[in-house]
Amino acid sequence: MNFQLIAQDGDARAGRVETAHGSFDTPAFLPVGTQATVKAVSPEQLSEIGAQIILCNAYHLSIRPGDELIAKMGGLHRFMGWDGPILTDSGGYQVFSLAKMTEITDEGAAFQSHVDGAKVFVTPERAVEIQERLGADIIMAFDECVGYPCGRERAAEAMRRSVEWARRCLAAKTRDECSLFGITQGGVHQDLRTECSQALSEMPFDGYAVGGLSVGEEWARSAEVIALSDRLFPPEKPRYLMGMGLPENILEAVERGIDMFDCVLPTRNARNGEAFTKHGRIKIRNEKYKYDESPIDEDCDCYACRNFTRAYLRHLFNTQEILGLTLLTQHNLRFYMRLMEGIREAIRAGRFAEFKNLFEKNLNRRPPAPS
Amino acid sequence: MNFQLIAQDGDARAGRVETAHGSFDTPAFLPVGTQATVKAVSPEQLSEIGAQIILCNAYHLSIRPGDELIAKMGGLHRFMGWDGPILTDSGGYQVFSLAKMTEITDEGAAFQSHVDGAKVFVTPERAVEIQERLGADIIMAFDECVGYPCGRERAAEAMRRSVEWARRCLAAKTRDECSLFGITQGGVHQDLRTECSQALSEMPFDGYAVGGLSVGEEWARSAEVIALSDRLFPPEKPRYLMGMGLPENILEAVERGIDMFDCVLPTRNARNGEAFTKHGRIKIRNEKYKYDESPIDEDCDCYACRNFTRAYLRHLFNTQEILGLTLLTQHNLRFYMRLMEGIREAIRAGRFAEFKNLFEKNLNRRPPAPS
Repeated sequence: MNFQLIAQDGDARAGRVETAHGSFDTPAFLPVGTQATVKAVSPEQLSEIGAQIILCNAYHLSIRPGDELIAKMGGLHRFMGWDGPILTDSGGYQVFSLAKMTEITDEGAAFQSHVDGAKVFVTPERAVEIQERLGADIIMAFDECVGYPCGRERAAEAMRRSVEWARRCLAAKTRDECSLFGITQGGVHQDLRTECSQALSEMPFDGYAVGGLSVGEEWARSAEVIALSDRLFPPEKPRYLMGMGLPENILEAVERGIDMFDCVLPTRNARNGEAFTKHGRIKIRNEKYKYDESPIDEDCDCYACRNFTRAYLRHLFNTQEILGLTLLTQHNLRFYMRLMEGIREAIRAGRFAEFKNLFEKNLNRRPPAPS
Repeated sequence: MNFQLIAQDGDARAGRVETAHGSFDTPAFLPVGTQATVKAVSPEQLSEIGAQIILCNAYHLSIRPGDELIAKMGGLHRFMGWDGPILTDSGGYQVFSLAKMTEITDEGAAFQSHVDGAKVFVTPERAVEIQERLGADIIMAFDECVGYPCGRERAAEAMRRSVEWARRCLAAKTRDECSLFGITQGGVHQDLRTECSQALSEMPFDGYAVGGLSVGEEWARSAEVIALSDRLFPPEKPRYLMGMGLPENILEAVERGIDMFDCVLPTRNARNGEAFTKHGRIKIRNEKYKYDESPIDEDCDCYACRNFTRAYLRHLFNTQEILGLTLLTQHNLRFYMRLMEGIREAIRAGRFAEFKNLFEKNLNRRPPAPS
């Protein structure tokens, strides 16, 4: 993997990452394809949307259909028909959020699968094995995530264990073409985050991620952690803020030097009938769109906005039609891709602050009345 | 509307129908888009599949979102983003199959909507009004459908009412660009079907349909009705067998002179994980496809077969992923389009019997063992 810094504007950075499966521009947003598919869209549609890299979940895929099966089928890229870069999450967050009866020791995490309750034991070595079998371009260290609020002692224990596990992940790695990122933990405790970032920065990771946020804390606390962690990471490596993705938060995090993002918001909200627009999110089922002949967003060039009215999309959601899920997913992802394109362009032009201000101003304007 | 007969091979016919929204080749299969969307695929995907004309349901659309709304939005083509020919079913069959508390008089059908129980009264005049407001290229007469088995007297009553209603539909029609087809009823009673076909043939319909089949009767009885009705329709008008669509039955009906078909089988079965292949239907969830690296059908050129293995499709269905529904729908519809392309080519080449024999022979062969 090669990371090239192209431009800086304040702490905001624009760059490009090259992987064995092509390159992607940063700041980048990774659509989430948990189970080897970004929900409701095809790889062809993802390309059309402008996605350059996607995220899949090692935890989910190790359970269904199994990492061994995917390896036998030629790896994750071939299995899911996506030949661009893929990043896999290690499963640390899923152990925290999904698994039942979890018991964590220094050795690893024992838990019951969220699918069938089967007993699973994941160690840092096993997490690397899964991700190398999947053949992702970027793989993540196995970490221990804690909730919010979380006392200093508990957060410190999980953080130090995560550092130790990160070291074991590095030692376990065998495939050169899989780049490994370390993940910081430490809750919202500044000193713990500092200790963690410094420890990881001394290890030869290909990139550094901020984990364990977006678990219930308010934005101001996340922002402090992001700013802090960011300052402590080596500048020549990409920085990834995991699982946090409101457009306004992405802008704040880019301002603090983050290069990569992923989040289920655009895809999950789409399936719940919520569309992103520059004036904020709209509920497409709303009565006021009944006769609305305008597209979701006048400025958007996605397939949904080029071809369909809000009235039609509302009808699709009212009648539980699958096409509605696909069209809103296409739109929301395209909204994110356009946001990231705008961010990158602004950084390269040295006017990121202006771009951010305008975006925030638009957000706070009332949506125009439907026609 | 203009129907041009291009070739005949026995009673099988190949032709072309021109409408205000372009033409389609016959024998034609119409994917079903009940609620103004062919379930799980976009208009763009439908075009790629090779669909030339689709069917929508006037009954469903009059209830949600309402024919008035669709008219205000510029008509059904614009509303749903499909600019090719559209045929709408009148709702006669849905009154029979879906509505509750139905009471049918000579005036029309009173019933409760299947969505919210609201009282609805549909007359032949109202059925034409709905369809003209939708702006379909081909609209269907409002008819009374009976089940199977059905006694002679009851079948005769519904048939004679359908003939009278067909006459009223013709009188009610105001838009030249909407072509109107008559529909025969009469259950499986040959004399009633004969009387009905003769009566309708004397009226100036743009095409003739065989209705009221596929309601539980065995194929042999359907075949008799199809053969009979077909002989009595004017040869210069297209003939449409409604709602019947197993590939093997399509071949039998084409042999008996039918030009148009519609059926939910390819789309509904896709969503249930069943894929059509030349060797018969396969259940994609089957354990034996777990490691199967072959596409659904080696001969198929659809997006799913060009890009994905059976193993991946099985995984998508096992994990309830929406993409699985879309991919299998694309495949099944493409299977039908390829079948119709093969049929048309064979008729034009004077070797329809050979084509039909080969298709049937393949169907009875065991599927090849998965690799």
